Amino acid sequence: MPRFEHLRHKPPARPVQSRQLVVACAAMRSHVNLSHIVRSCGCFGIGRVIACGHAKIDERIARDGADSVVLEVHRTLPPVLDRLKADGYEIVGLEQATGSESLFTFGFAPRTVIVVGNERTGLEQPELDRLDRVAEIPMAGMPHSLNAATTAAIAIYEYCRQFPDGSPAVT
Amino acid sequence: MPRFEHLRHKPPARPVQSRQLVVACAAMRSHVNLSHIVRSCGCFGIGRVIACGHAKIDERIARDGADSVVLEVHRTLPPVLDRLKADGYEIVGLEQATGSESLFTFGFAPRTVIVVGNERTGLEQPELDRLDRVAEIPMAGMPHSLNAATTAAIAIYEYCRQFPDGSPAVT
Repeated sequence: MPRFEHLRHKPPARPVQSRQLVVACAAMRSHVNLSHIVRSCGCFGIGRVIACGHAKIDERIARDGADSVVLEVHRTLPPVLDRLKADGYEIVGLEQATGSESLFTFGFAPRTVIVVGNERTGLEQPELDRLDRVAEIPMAGMPHSLNAATTAAIAIYEYCRQFPDGSPAVT
Repeated sequence: MPRFEHLRHKPPARPVQSRQLVVACAAMRSHVNLSHIVRSCGCFGIGRVIACGHAKIDERIARDGADSVVLEVHRTLPPVLDRLKADGYEIVGLEQATGSESLFTFGFAPRTVIVVGNERTGLEQPELDRLDRVAEIPMAGMPHSLNAATTAAIAIYEYCRQFPDGSPAVT
């Protein structure tokens, strides 16, 4: 019998507690990237994605993520970030910025908003001004900049790695 | 002065020692996915990517990763994996499989090959038979399956997180 065999329809290990992570995206250039982010959120059990501008989901990319994730579309991010901060979320931008911390050693708060910038312009100053912290994935080579959906997936993974059984209850 | 400001051309933190990580891809359906993998490898300082079949890189996606990463194209993976194993690499598949370990708690060997399967069929038995270990990203929701390039990027990130200063010398 082979040591490893492919399991095509492995039941997911759903976390006991729901994840208190929200992913908030600035207006993206690419529906492909936003759709990939929605797919990744679905896979990791993240239920809430905020998008801005003319947000459209390609279901061929997002797959069932398009059904399991609630997508809220807003005009701009700053007012939404203000409300989430008032609700007790830590607002964490993904960006190469002054004052950023390496994601390798970044300890997430259970109640977190991950903020993803536009592919070209990144996070802009009104968004940066709302952040509590900035996480940065250390780059070691060219092109020195990951794809936006890849960056988001890595940060979501890192959050879930720190809370493998779901987000602890906030008291 | 704002607390966080975007740094557009931040110099990369190149690891002191080169990374002893190889990324080996089965024949992929999509040049887009392979190109994204090459881009992520470039960003994380991974110098060697193995691809199979009719491998083509879209430089608009891979960006400068297409120049900084050496892409070796082979007909099939198993003979290459045999040679890498003889060279002392631990061969780690990314798959939902029997005997897989969660990537959340997976300790990588410094000298590692990450093996990425085809988007539809995953890793096939001749490839699975060459693996020392299988790492699996725990899924918590629909569609229960991440995009292949996203999976690869997360595993590369996790390896780099464990060896932030580059791979230690193998003695």
